[in-house]
Amino acid sequence: MSVKVITIDTNILQKNEISAAENRELFKKHKVLAVNLLSSPGSGKTSLLVQTCKSFSNKLNLSVSVGDLQTEVDARRIAETGVPVVQINTGTACHLDANMVQQSFSSLPLDGTDILFIENVGNLVCPATFDLGEHLRVVLLSVAEGEEKPLKYPPIFQGAHCVCINKVDLLPYVDFDMQQCRDNLKRICPQAVVFEFSCKTGEGLSQWHSWLQRQWSAAFKESC
Amino acid sequence: MSVKVITIDTNILQKNEISAAENRELFKKHKVLAVNLLSSPGSGKTSLLVQTCKSFSNKLNLSVSVGDLQTEVDARRIAETGVPVVQINTGTACHLDANMVQQSFSSLPLDGTDILFIENVGNLVCPATFDLGEHLRVVLLSVAEGEEKPLKYPPIFQGAHCVCINKVDLLPYVDFDMQQCRDNLKRICPQAVVFEFSCKTGEGLSQWHSWLQRQWSAAFKESC
Repeated sequence: MSVKVITIDTNILQKNEISAAENRELFKKHKVLAVNLLSSPGSGKTSLLVQTCKSFSNKLNLSVSVGDLQTEVDARRIAETGVPVVQINTGTACHLDANMVQQSFSSLPLDGTDILFIENVGNLVCPATFDLGEHLRVVLLSVAEGEEKPLKYPPIFQGAHCVCINKVDLLPYVDFDMQQCRDNLKRICPQAVVFEFSCKTGEGLSQWHSWLQRQWSAAFKESC
Repeated sequence: MSVKVITIDTNILQKNEISAAENRELFKKHKVLAVNLLSSPGSGKTSLLVQTCKSFSNKLNLSVSVGDLQTEVDARRIAETGVPVVQINTGTACHLDANMVQQSFSSLPLDGTDILFIENVGNLVCPATFDLGEHLRVVLLSVAEGEEKPLKYPPIFQGAHCVCINKVDLLPYVDFDMQQCRDNLKRICPQAVVFEFSCKTGEGLSQWHSWLQRQWSAAFKESC
């Protein structure tokens, strides 16, 4: 039984790798920086995208693919900023895979996109395993969730290029030890850049925006 | 490819059903009410168990099996209440299955247990699919996560006997529409009892404790 499962898991991941490689080629061809945004449900992924879309409206062209089991709530919120957005409904699937993301490209203007955000299904476990062909993985963590989460859910943090600690406006009202969280992140994902901000108040977001702009410049500016 | 996956998924679930049925027999034999506690990471499952263990210390005998990818942080917090607890580390697995839970019984005093809590891995998607043989499914939702979560993650709510809305002490500081949340729950899981409380302040917990006591009484009191 266990052998069978391993075989199928490998097949699924091999198939995903093929689609992820195709996505990478498409991103390269269209000069798109692809960012995979991951977190628990309710950490603020959509709020971060709304803020980021507003901030970059006169600087870079953004597009968004957003995954949810059901509803178009998130896509509607993002669409209000004027940024092209596609909602991917996964039904019961707990993560986006590279093929789902690829299918969304037919509804997005990849040629006119500088940064593509892929908002994954809210889940701190399963999306870690699936390469979408992205350049960057950004993991969001809300201070309402607790500072021990990097220790309890290490795989998703270990693959992160950037960790964003959101909802810092709630710090006076929750038991969250920021220094301990940073120590945990240093232990689990020393490679990750860490930002602290509040998507609600806007506090700290400028550093995130600058970092993102630098990532895009480093990847494509010289070749444009 | 897809046929293979469906076959294996069915095998996994069939195997799980066998273990879940065995668990049900064990719970019946030992007169244990089993409660599967599910939520996103950081909604307050462990805090709820700590509060519940303290409250029931002179009334009913509790035991806890707690699932996490890694660490024993949660088990240690619960152990401080004096209640028998076993930590199940799932490695990279995104949910508990019935066999994992069954293996934890060898370290728990089932004969002296009235209510067994099974704290699932923090994940609002995958644990919904796996029957653990439990009598009750309790889904926890924090007000910091947002009132639309029942619409976006319906499977886990559809299977709930009870939904607990936690962290109501944060209501003044977050954009959470309680009435809309209750409307969403009524639409997705009309069968579920709904409680509002704060594990931090203790507000509202007495109703949860009374309900739990009634569930145990209805299941086993007459036969004791």
